[in-house]
Amino acid sequence: MTPHDSVQDSVHDSRVPPAGEAPPLASRTYTDALFHDVLPFWEQYSLDREVGGYFTCLTRDGRVFDTDKFIWLQARQVWMFSFLYRVVAQRPEWLQVAQLGAGFLLKHGRDENKDWYFSLRRNGRPLVAAYNIFSDCFATMALAEYAAAAAMYEHGGAAPAGPGREAAGGARPGPSSEQAREVALETYRRILPRRENPKGRFTKQVSGGRPLHAMALPMIGVNMAMVVQAALGNEAFSDIDIDPEQEITANVERVLDLHLDRAARRLFERVGPNGTHPDCMDGRLLNPGHACEVLWMIMEAGDQLGRRDWIDTATEALLWTVEHGWDRRYGGLYYYQDAQGFPPEKLEADMKLWWVHAEAIYAFAAAYEYTGSEEHKHWLERLHSYSWEHFADPEYGEWFGYLTREGLPSNGLKGGKWKGCFHLPRALLKTGARLQRLEKAGVLS
Amino acid sequence: MTPHDSVQDSVHDSRVPPAGEAPPLASRTYTDALFHDVLPFWEQYSLDREVGGYFTCLTRDGRVFDTDKFIWLQARQVWMFSFLYRVVAQRPEWLQVAQLGAGFLLKHGRDENKDWYFSLRRNGRPLVAAYNIFSDCFATMALAEYAAAAAMYEHGGAAPAGPGREAAGGARPGPSSEQAREVALETYRRILPRRENPKGRFTKQVSGGRPLHAMALPMIGVNMAMVVQAALGNEAFSDIDIDPEQEITANVERVLDLHLDRAARRLFERVGPNGTHPDCMDGRLLNPGHACEVLWMIMEAGDQLGRRDWIDTATEALLWTVEHGWDRRYGGLYYYQDAQGFPPEKLEADMKLWWVHAEAIYAFAAAYEYTGSEEHKHWLERLHSYSWEHFADPEYGEWFGYLTREGLPSNGLKGGKWKGCFHLPRALLKTGARLQRLEKAGVLS
Repeated sequence: MTPHDSVQDSVHDSRVPPAGEAPPLASRTYTDALFHDVLPFWEQYSLDREVGGYFTCLTRDGRVFDTDKFIWLQARQVWMFSFLYRVVAQRPEWLQVAQLGAGFLLKHGRDENKDWYFSLRRNGRPLVAAYNIFSDCFATMALAEYAAAAAMYEHGGAAPAGPGREAAGGARPGPSSEQAREVALETYRRILPRRENPKGRFTKQVSGGRPLHAMALPMIGVNMAMVVQAALGNEAFSDIDIDPEQEITANVERVLDLHLDRAARRLFERVGPNGTHPDCMDGRLLNPGHACEVLWMIMEAGDQLGRRDWIDTATEALLWTVEHGWDRRYGGLYYYQDAQGFPPEKLEADMKLWWVHAEAIYAFAAAYEYTGSEEHKHWLERLHSYSWEHFADPEYGEWFGYLTREGLPSNGLKGGKWKGCFHLPRALLKTGARLQRLEKAGVLS
Repeated sequence: MTPHDSVQDSVHDSRVPPAGEAPPLASRTYTDALFHDVLPFWEQYSLDREVGGYFTCLTRDGRVFDTDKFIWLQARQVWMFSFLYRVVAQRPEWLQVAQLGAGFLLKHGRDENKDWYFSLRRNGRPLVAAYNIFSDCFATMALAEYAAAAAMYEHGGAAPAGPGREAAGGARPGPSSEQAREVALETYRRILPRRENPKGRFTKQVSGGRPLHAMALPMIGVNMAMVVQAALGNEAFSDIDIDPEQEITANVERVLDLHLDRAARRLFERVGPNGTHPDCMDGRLLNPGHACEVLWMIMEAGDQLGRRDWIDTATEALLWTVEHGWDRRYGGLYYYQDAQGFPPEKLEADMKLWWVHAEAIYAFAAAYEYTGSEEHKHWLERLHSYSWEHFADPEYGEWFGYLTREGLPSNGLKGGKWKGCFHLPRALLKTGARLQRLEKAGVLS
């Protein structure tokens, strides 16, 4: 039996037929998984204490199978642990994990133009150039959140000391709050003018060939503004000459006015000028996971800015998304769909991905809190059951990343080039908080 | 039931449990499928008689679901029908199909620098820029083969007249042999200096980050030299200042000396300088279909240049490839593998693709003719049975392109952005010819 088979098959063998018994839909399920399973997995296997940063290519049982450092995932893990330190508890070990990545990012993450690379070798040597603005966006959010956490520590939060500290390289203290804040805002400033041409010289589309707007841009625009605002406050925006409320509003309206087609009851991933739908694969592309993710961001924005109309629209569009995106035969949400039902371009279109389901669960937990409707509760329960029955790994913990359409792990990875310590822990934390409030309100037993 | 489900499910529903009964392993099976099923499918559904070129995005039953024109596939179909006209029979309708595409390519295919685009809109307006040299390579082979076919016609081959002719636009006669030859050789000349940096300004790899050689380059180098030589003869090479034998030899040796690791018994898709294997996902990547395809090209080159040593090495490496690449659990060859058995980067790694199996069948038909060994015959039979049982569509003809690991169609497309009229008909034609000789020799009943 070849190594390939041994790994491939160990995964297929491992699956017990769906447990049938998902853990209860309760805040406890989510917080226990976060603090006793998922965070420990990444704390145990992902930390590169030698040179800083994180290993994200991890097998089912946590072995590192590639030591390259992908900026998206480095930044997302820095954000995650900084956020935990700021909003959950000032645990020294969390700040310490954030320091490992923040120091690595500041030291190696940018090219001579101050654009962020896509990937680096373990030691920080650049591998893949900054070919669009997303590395920059995740770096901005990571460093803004880290700056907030570091400020709490500098103003007397618990010190990340003790043996772990030396292990993390006592000689290498974490970057200061000021240092991180400065690079975060400098990067944010540099992103703004590049948003209309996010790939710069790497753009393969011939100008005028077929203009299409990607939802990813307004989506990360909302996300970035809200994350930086929460971490650094409104005053940070004076340094970058934008008004956070205007920025959030403009991006939310771009999604709701251009990408959301209320007549078709679909949220389109790419649209032509004025929200038209070119009749081609790109123009018909649906991405249910992305839709769920942007819709909860819009709910949170609506909540913060007192725009109930955004919340009403987003919670309804969320139902359209899952009613169409749900696989009636095998359960779970498709990764990609064609709005007309033609064969999707991507071969992995009918696979079931961890992040799609993590984002969908949180989106419905939020929607249920805002609407109290049985429809949202029903879908929350349905997504909860499917996800815990199929993604959770009973043997080694954490969640499988990629399932076949039928719901079996298609490979054993717990982390890779795209799966890191981000979507699942963020969803577990945010969902746990929503469910806690729903339990207190007595609408969830 | 949504359109998506209806399409997705119609495919899943359609599959009968593997027929168990594949048609006999006989030349007749391959030539019948080519002339009575596959070519008619493309002749009926892919021809854009209005503006020229071909539709390649075709549903299971031949409906066009995207009208964009992808240069790789436009060129490959021009090559296929020109080759049929030159080597099989001077059927006017075949030359007519080739003319439709050759005229479209010459009119719309190149940018102002004479580099070939990646894709165009139906009417020829450019969509995606020439971001590497492969469009150029397929255009070279297409126009060289078309030039040979057109020359036969110009020197008295059967005229592509009759109603079909008007339908194809009687007003638009096909490009002349001379015109096509000139652009083919001009393109070939322009490719040579670009081979060490095939993506030019679109290269995302930071120089010096991790130098890796891709097997695709020497592979297409052998292919291009042999196709142009067969179509236009040695004299064509004086126009581009290379010697065809040296060109073929240099590229074959690059594959056998750098990419083939005889100790590991693996053909690596990417290698470091001197054939080293960087311990990362890219450095461990295996692509069994690509390996089978380059190995039959090396067998044909060895046959033509009298290098029995190439044939012996290629036929043995072919066995290593399928012994490791075969899915012992569900049958079929994997699309991608990691040489160490770690999770492959690509989500579609364990899917079963039509072209992988078409190329493998022909590679083993060739290998069996060269070696007469039972091992090669056994694998030829095994690949034949799996492929006809799983890829052939009993209801609408042609082959499904993409199967799940378990062997079920994962979507119904017969053509798309990457599947056109090329791998399957080429393999059917070449395999039919090999099997005919094996039958005459009495080693295949």
